[in-house]
Amino acid sequence: MKKNVLIVGAGGVAQVVAHKCAQHNDILGNIHIASRTVEKCQQIVDSVQEKGSLKVAGELQAHALDALDIAATKALIEQTQSRIVINVGSAFINMSVLQACIETGAAYMDTAIHEEPEKICETPPWYANYEWKRKELCAEKGVTAILGAGFDPGVVNAYAAIAVNEYFDSVSDIDIIDINAGSHGRYFATNFDPEINFREFTGTVWSWQNREWVSKSMFEVKRTDDLPVVGAQTSYMTGHDELHSLSKNLDVPNIRFWMGFGEHYINVFTVLKNLGLLSEQPVTTAEGLEVVPLKVVKAVLPDPSSLAPTYSGKTCIGDVVKGKKDGKDKEVFIYNVADHAEAYAEVGSQGISYTAGVPPVAAALLIATGEWDVNKMVNIEELDPKPFINLLNDMGLPTRIRDEQGDRALSF
Amino acid sequence: MKKNVLIVGAGGVAQVVAHKCAQHNDILGNIHIASRTVEKCQQIVDSVQEKGSLKVAGELQAHALDALDIAATKALIEQTQSRIVINVGSAFINMSVLQACIETGAAYMDTAIHEEPEKICETPPWYANYEWKRKELCAEKGVTAILGAGFDPGVVNAYAAIAVNEYFDSVSDIDIIDINAGSHGRYFATNFDPEINFREFTGTVWSWQNREWVSKSMFEVKRTDDLPVVGAQTSYMTGHDELHSLSKNLDVPNIRFWMGFGEHYINVFTVLKNLGLLSEQPVTTAEGLEVVPLKVVKAVLPDPSSLAPTYSGKTCIGDVVKGKKDGKDKEVFIYNVADHAEAYAEVGSQGISYTAGVPPVAAALLIATGEWDVNKMVNIEELDPKPFINLLNDMGLPTRIRDEQGDRALSF
Repeated sequence: MKKNVLIVGAGGVAQVVAHKCAQHNDILGNIHIASRTVEKCQQIVDSVQEKGSLKVAGELQAHALDALDIAATKALIEQTQSRIVINVGSAFINMSVLQACIETGAAYMDTAIHEEPEKICETPPWYANYEWKRKELCAEKGVTAILGAGFDPGVVNAYAAIAVNEYFDSVSDIDIIDINAGSHGRYFATNFDPEINFREFTGTVWSWQNREWVSKSMFEVKRTDDLPVVGAQTSYMTGHDELHSLSKNLDVPNIRFWMGFGEHYINVFTVLKNLGLLSEQPVTTAEGLEVVPLKVVKAVLPDPSSLAPTYSGKTCIGDVVKGKKDGKDKEVFIYNVADHAEAYAEVGSQGISYTAGVPPVAAALLIATGEWDVNKMVNIEELDPKPFINLLNDMGLPTRIRDEQGDRALSF
Repeated sequence: MKKNVLIVGAGGVAQVVAHKCAQHNDILGNIHIASRTVEKCQQIVDSVQEKGSLKVAGELQAHALDALDIAATKALIEQTQSRIVINVGSAFINMSVLQACIETGAAYMDTAIHEEPEKICETPPWYANYEWKRKELCAEKGVTAILGAGFDPGVVNAYAAIAVNEYFDSVSDIDIIDINAGSHGRYFATNFDPEINFREFTGTVWSWQNREWVSKSMFEVKRTDDLPVVGAQTSYMTGHDELHSLSKNLDVPNIRFWMGFGEHYINVFTVLKNLGLLSEQPVTTAEGLEVVPLKVVKAVLPDPSSLAPTYSGKTCIGDVVKGKKDGKDKEVFIYNVADHAEAYAEVGSQGISYTAGVPPVAAALLIATGEWDVNKMVNIEELDPKPFINLLNDMGLPTRIRDEQGDRALSF
């Protein structure tokens, strides 16, 4: 049984991960939180203590760490005797943290693909550009590495596996839909770091159609769905990590990702982008000051963490899956609805962070108990989804299914 | 007869003023252009030479001048023996240039009210806040000072005077409408310095209604008119200099100013304003750089002077005047239509600069010939409008009138 967790990162998702690890520290053991700024880790430690989230008495410590420094990361893993590392830091540190895990034998987990700072929107094959190059090494060393273990990617990959395994003879289409129907009450704000948020939407949109990569522009293709709880919602085709691994691991010709945006968000984004204010290239003011416009936009926008206390409404994220069963057309929607205010009450973060932060802790529990301790590198859809879904049902992210038999809770 | 003209300022309007003075240098004498950056003055001199705009051989010189320095401005007026000063520099230098004129006896002219840099949108009474405090001194010294001698304020004040004098027994409403139906072909651009342009619209909107100042918000009140040449156009109630002088000098209970904006302009403006990107208060980026957002917006927008070569379409500016004549309701529209491409071909500036730059030269000619050399401080509506309108007809800004008898050229 693997024990002791090192959380790398100290943002809103790390806050959720820490609270959820604390709620299960009877199984997970000691909890360590490390990021470049130790004060942010300490704030999370304080928040966990204040809410009394630790299930049993145990260690909970903050550490300063430059996670690009492999030797320092290895040293911290060894010093803290962490056997599970949950990487929820910036997307730039995946490869260095993964290397430290491989060299120490600790299990590795992340929630998004690796990125290099100077590249905006990597082109497919995303995982194959970086992480999958370590597949052989992980197998050789017997290291468990679970990639993309948040909600999307993560839980939506498990939903896809369930649909393929349980409900269809053959699947033609998987459409992953991510809707935030919540309201932060500000004129405009991003739910996480504006620099990272806008980067997702300034490049080419990739999707997997007829078993080929197809490129579109942002906001070029949209759909409107009548969804449970949140009602009619319009979403836009977006490139997203899980399209790549699902296209390789499942025999499905069409896999697309759709992100919900209100018209207001799109309008503000479009104005800023067209004016050049989302550029990472510096401009020079009439007074001779050199400045990166995107950094000024970030400076005038609300701090994403400031939104949580008053965030209201719900998220709805799930997979619309279409195919054949017993010779007939069939469609299911497997999904979760999360509530911003409930998330804040429980762990001090809004719903977007909550949906991303709970799943890696469920995965950590499955590694700790051995069910998912597979001694190799995998994406979520390669693992048995049933114990994961069952755990999430108990941990605050219940799964539901809607099909021809109605809308109901899903468990195994 | 007053001779020799000093132009203060070196922007798009100054360029028009210089070309038009050159076209009439048989009457106006030597022409001097002064601004802080002498290179910009020299570019205007070169442009006048290239187009061969000088009517007769004569002096045309560029000078470096800090026009906030009254002693330096006096010295330049004396050195160049300028008897007419056309101030088309920034709105911040009015009072210092006026003072230099008073002390040297030169005639003074400007095209916009004085502003202090740290105040955004002065509250009424605008002229009385600054310029009119020098009224007595001008009269005492016999100095001619003509305020607001551009198009609006300026020509529209003459239109108002003509309507009141010639077409009505009593006037109830003057609505000044300023429409730019031209296209610069860019996603977004301002027609003059973005810092000054946005300042006009970030404060309270003042209008004169029922003989009282009424305050509104920007884009709160709009109207749509079917106008000559440019067709149906929507404009928005805006505060503007001439409302103040007209409210004092004419016996008219309702005087309003309306500026045409496309929905696209309003949308971009609204997004930038609401995000805080039009703020003159510095913000600090995550990296610790202190920067004024408005200056970054200015840096990413096209340089207004770069728009002129491809600017197409027309402007329509005029006065809708309503009242009684012989006991009956009457309405007239007195207006000018200008063409961006024609302005560029003639003087190398777009139509907005052209409409602002031609009228002060017409006024300078009337000072030179004595007709408007009134030896006191006045606004345009206090002067005989007929010779002004007649001159403008010949100088590229023809006046037309539309009433119950149809649409026709207007001259006297």
